[in-house]
Amino acid sequence: MRSAEKLTRTKERTKPALRPYLAATRSFASGGATPRQFLEESLELLESWEPRIGAFVCTNLPEARKAAESSTERWRAGRSLSPIDGMPVGVKDVIETCDMPTQMSSPLFSGWRSEKDAASVRALRDAGAVILGKTVTTEFAAAEPRGTRNPWNMAHTPGGSSSGSAAAVACGIVSAALGTQVIGSVIRPASFCGCIGFKPTVNAINREGSHDYQSQSCTGILAASLQDAWQIAREIVARVGGDAGTPGLQGPDAMPSSAKPRRLGVLETAGWHVASAEAKQALDDCVQRLKSAGIEIHTRHDDDKIAALETDPIDTAELSNRCNGWETRWFFHSMRDRDAGALSRNITERAGKYEDMTLADYRAALKERARVRAVHAELAASCDAFITLAAPSHAPEGLGSTGNPEFAVPASLLGVPALSLPLFEVGGMPLGLQVVGYRDRDADAFAAAAWLMSVLAQAR
Amino acid sequence: MRSAEKLTRTKERTKPALRPYLAATRSFASGGATPRQFLEESLELLESWEPRIGAFVCTNLPEARKAAESSTERWRAGRSLSPIDGMPVGVKDVIETCDMPTQMSSPLFSGWRSEKDAASVRALRDAGAVILGKTVTTEFAAAEPRGTRNPWNMAHTPGGSSSGSAAAVACGIVSAALGTQVIGSVIRPASFCGCIGFKPTVNAINREGSHDYQSQSCTGILAASLQDAWQIAREIVARVGGDAGTPGLQGPDAMPSSAKPRRLGVLETAGWHVASAEAKQALDDCVQRLKSAGIEIHTRHDDDKIAALETDPIDTAELSNRCNGWETRWFFHSMRDRDAGALSRNITERAGKYEDMTLADYRAALKERARVRAVHAELAASCDAFITLAAPSHAPEGLGSTGNPEFAVPASLLGVPALSLPLFEVGGMPLGLQVVGYRDRDADAFAAAAWLMSVLAQAR
Repeated sequence: MRSAEKLTRTKERTKPALRPYLAATRSFASGGATPRQFLEESLELLESWEPRIGAFVCTNLPEARKAAESSTERWRAGRSLSPIDGMPVGVKDVIETCDMPTQMSSPLFSGWRSEKDAASVRALRDAGAVILGKTVTTEFAAAEPRGTRNPWNMAHTPGGSSSGSAAAVACGIVSAALGTQVIGSVIRPASFCGCIGFKPTVNAINREGSHDYQSQSCTGILAASLQDAWQIAREIVARVGGDAGTPGLQGPDAMPSSAKPRRLGVLETAGWHVASAEAKQALDDCVQRLKSAGIEIHTRHDDDKIAALETDPIDTAELSNRCNGWETRWFFHSMRDRDAGALSRNITERAGKYEDMTLADYRAALKERARVRAVHAELAASCDAFITLAAPSHAPEGLGSTGNPEFAVPASLLGVPALSLPLFEVGGMPLGLQVVGYRDRDADAFAAAAWLMSVLAQAR
Repeated sequence: MRSAEKLTRTKERTKPALRPYLAATRSFASGGATPRQFLEESLELLESWEPRIGAFVCTNLPEARKAAESSTERWRAGRSLSPIDGMPVGVKDVIETCDMPTQMSSPLFSGWRSEKDAASVRALRDAGAVILGKTVTTEFAAAEPRGTRNPWNMAHTPGGSSSGSAAAVACGIVSAALGTQVIGSVIRPASFCGCIGFKPTVNAINREGSHDYQSQSCTGILAASLQDAWQIAREIVARVGGDAGTPGLQGPDAMPSSAKPRRLGVLETAGWHVASAEAKQALDDCVQRLKSAGIEIHTRHDDDKIAALETDPIDTAELSNRCNGWETRWFFHSMRDRDAGALSRNITERAGKYEDMTLADYRAALKERARVRAVHAELAASCDAFITLAAPSHAPEGLGSTGNPEFAVPASLLGVPALSLPLFEVGGMPLGLQVVGYRDRDADAFAAAAWLMSVLAQAR
């Protein structure tokens, strides 16, 4: 009987659907629903989807159930620890967890245990969140994929490197998941899987215990709603701050109110020349709608300062790669010494490219990055935020690559907040509108994103 | 026969003696001596001293011998990897090593393996250094000592938290060792054990893979000579830089030339009221000698800006502790969850003090720290550097405490370079003269220190 029911339900799970958490908590105090019920639905979805998409490396269901039970009692008693108390969350497998191994999708860390929680994970637990499991990452959060499939079409990549986080959120197994981004590892999979992706201002969410070692690295959020994304980031930062020595994510305790931007910059980025006609059309249509709504649009074709940013002689992706390459060279030396054969060809070739960089080269790259950041910061006088595509098109077919990251490079290089909003559709699959903001003004980016979501989702 | 010879040698090892490495390498090219011989002497000293002082948690002698052998061949062939090629080095046991566990002097990390080298360790290996073993730290590099003894007097503490690093360098087992400092963990043990201690500008040496999570944390060097200290720092930074996103230690490839300072500030610090009469006298005598040498001396009594720094209404140690307390709270939550009983009372009480801090409190502490840093930075117009004691007196008797850190607090809070120079003696035991410099001007601090060493060591 139960099994037949499950089969029916399982069959129903053909189209992925997001499961926002904050909206669901409204009935928790009255007991109309409970975090435990919310989790059981997660577990059903896990059972249904996971065999097909492979989003998780491992789970800790007994602990998750226990945490959801405690959360249920707290909500009933009116003593919830935070608005995300009871939220089912996934954690990218480069971020440390006490109760599960952190394996970084490398045989070199097979079964490896950190014996501590990362700062972000610890904060989630202290806020009452339910850590369901570890989500699949590409090898060391770089380019080599590890088999996760896109829930919108199993023959397509979910993007990466936060592959499992995006896929798990997309089909509702968790309401949110931690990811990391140093180039495009949150924005791209969010775009491909049709969920919210939030890469904060660099350093704004404490990265201690996350195994990405670059100065552009960010812990980011994949989430079912903008509200969930903001709240989870906020609850982490309220408890453990940003990176040590920095003030951490700036903004209100609850999601900022929707605010209509007055002037938006449209970025083409280096990704424009590889973007599909449909994707470009989607962005163009969006821009037309925004113009109709009275928003002043600036582009490289009519704004010298955007042109300066977009047509800069430097190759932004290469500059980004040079910074990252120097910053992780020690790690690859260490891994190569352990067992060069255990590294993918992909990562070995990438690492090799920056083998000869000197300290002087690195310092020059940092200076150049600082210069580009200053060019962007000046644009605050003329644009409230920027929009662009989150990826060149929908998720490409095949599991051998996580897709082109070019559209995500600028925000990573600039160290500024970026959001991917699931507003476009190409070939029956999702594509994100990317909103790029200014350093430490993550709240403004959310306010603009909320307005864009409300207006453009209706129009779609 | 060999054993009798060893016995004689062992008996000779009653007074600790530093073994600078760079000075010894002069004969390596000619083959007059070799890194392998240098290491064998290290191993004899290890055998003689280690049972009495307990400086090491573990060693990897086969690997060390292999590394010294390779280094010997490189020097012979004129292909040494760096000036520190072959240098025997110890690594504080909060810094990760691939070939040895990283146990942080906590039962919670008993036998724990990082499966990678820290960035600094990887750089040392790439520069040809010989990693002899892991040196004893206090529990999680905080206050609870783990039994290491001072080679100058076994009944006295070696200081901490870099206890084993300082003790091992002091008796010549290694020419240098990595330590870490967030308050006084390099400067104090260097002072107590009579070796060079170097805490660089904050972020100047890459800390990735070092288990100290604070914004004031620095990887520092304990060394047998100023020259060794500079070179080891420089070779690390040339290969792996400072913390990701920062330019890293600034200065020349080889130790800066000695430079006579024109104007020196004398700091009393909050430690002055607990300093011994002999220690104060030693500093006073030193100041008199410097005046005689024509150096202009500024103190809180005659320089308003030093007075502003020294009589600031804030409690610098408490400000420092508040920053550190917030920044490590997540870690102690994680440890407490694993097994509260496995933490010392000492560390539990400390951690508990900052349990109620909010993000707003932390941001206020950061602002206050920035303000104090600005007050200090302005002094560059009137003082070339500062001198003070490195500790209130010689190492106190007993192994239950690593001693008072007050004299080391200012440089840690300010994020500026500090050196402890083994120039004083109190009660037959060493005491350091501390040189405090300016942010990113570590090379200037070394140049002044070299001059002070040459002049004051002669005078002693």
